[in-house]
Amino acid sequence: MNFSSKLLENAVAEFAKLPGVGQKTALRLVLHLLNQDKPDVERFSAAMTKLRNEIQHCEVCHNISDSKVCEICAAHKRDRTLVCVVEDTRDVMAIENTNQYNGIYHVLGGLISPMDGIGPADLTIDSLVERVKADEIKEVIFALSATMEGDTTIFYLHKRLKDSAVTISTIARGIAFGGELEYVDEITLGRSITTRVPYEHSLSR
Amino acid sequence: MNFSSKLLENAVAEFAKLPGVGQKTALRLVLHLLNQDKPDVERFSAAMTKLRNEIQHCEVCHNISDSKVCEICAAHKRDRTLVCVVEDTRDVMAIENTNQYNGIYHVLGGLISPMDGIGPADLTIDSLVERVKADEIKEVIFALSATMEGDTTIFYLHKRLKDSAVTISTIARGIAFGGELEYVDEITLGRSITTRVPYEHSLSR
Repeated sequence: MNFSSKLLENAVAEFAKLPGVGQKTALRLVLHLLNQDKPDVERFSAAMTKLRNEIQHCEVCHNISDSKVCEICAAHKRDRTLVCVVEDTRDVMAIENTNQYNGIYHVLGGLISPMDGIGPADLTIDSLVERVKADEIKEVIFALSATMEGDTTIFYLHKRLKDSAVTISTIARGIAFGGELEYVDEITLGRSITTRVPYEHSLSR
Repeated sequence: MNFSSKLLENAVAEFAKLPGVGQKTALRLVLHLLNQDKPDVERFSAAMTKLRNEIQHCEVCHNISDSKVCEICAAHKRDRTLVCVVEDTRDVMAIENTNQYNGIYHVLGGLISPMDGIGPADLTIDSLVERVKADEIKEVIFALSATMEGDTTIFYLHKRLKDSAVTISTIARGIAFGGELEYVDEITLGRSITTRVPYEHSLSR
């Protein structure tokens, strides 16, 4: 692209580094910012820098946090015997949005993926094992993606935790609500038959 | 969404103000930035602030520029008798990318749109009339979108310029290269028949 301004070119190049943002989208976004008032653009920039410089990770669950211990870990009404293991903060947000869970979390910071060079040592797995040993935890729920990496991670975590006294469970896999049977893949459908639940049980939310 | 951090929530809110960026996309982009090194995020933020604070508009053609007169207006090899009137800097870039145009530009900064409250006074139309009066301009080419707003703007500009000595033209409208005839809308197809060109002429690029 022929930019009429180095400043513009530079800003577009920075935006185009973001995932899923190409040159054209970047240009559109940058021109939008250019049409905003100076304080608005300052606020936009400051929000990013402040986030990056001041963000912390909760000492207990490793979730993104503004303080040393995150709001969820610090909350009194949470059930501290129940720990949900997730990949990252987005999963915490997704589960929080369901309003179905009252336990606490453990954020791994990724999944084991030899292809991407991510091993157990790159994740907060040792910290989870420590928590299970030290804390009053009774059950650990794995809420990881139903992918190769998710399954590998669950397999490894299970090996590390199986000698402790905690109950280990994973979130249910099956047909999504609103899903039509004929479009469900065979593996999911097959599994949802073998892991069928009593009808009365399926009604309780 | 339940954010575990105010800093994160704030950064996502700023990103979500951009056109076409929703909460989920904003979160994805912000988490990506959060995974970058601090200097990278500083550079991203600085590029936006610097752009907004230091950008100028060319005194001659009103295009976005790093200096008082943009590179195109300052270039010696450009044909100063030919002025292409466009809506914004993106159109200048698009035309420059064709490598077919050697004249100079005039950036209106928008199109006349009563629906959006944009009248002739909000655009650089007076400046264009001044240029046509004062300069050595021989031809003005309208390269505006083929929309209601584009046509309205051309109509108004033509009224303002028709008493001057310049030739007024608009870019050709018709079937795009690679376009299949059966999918072209009737208006475009009809117009492309009435404004047909000699075959030899259509071969020259």
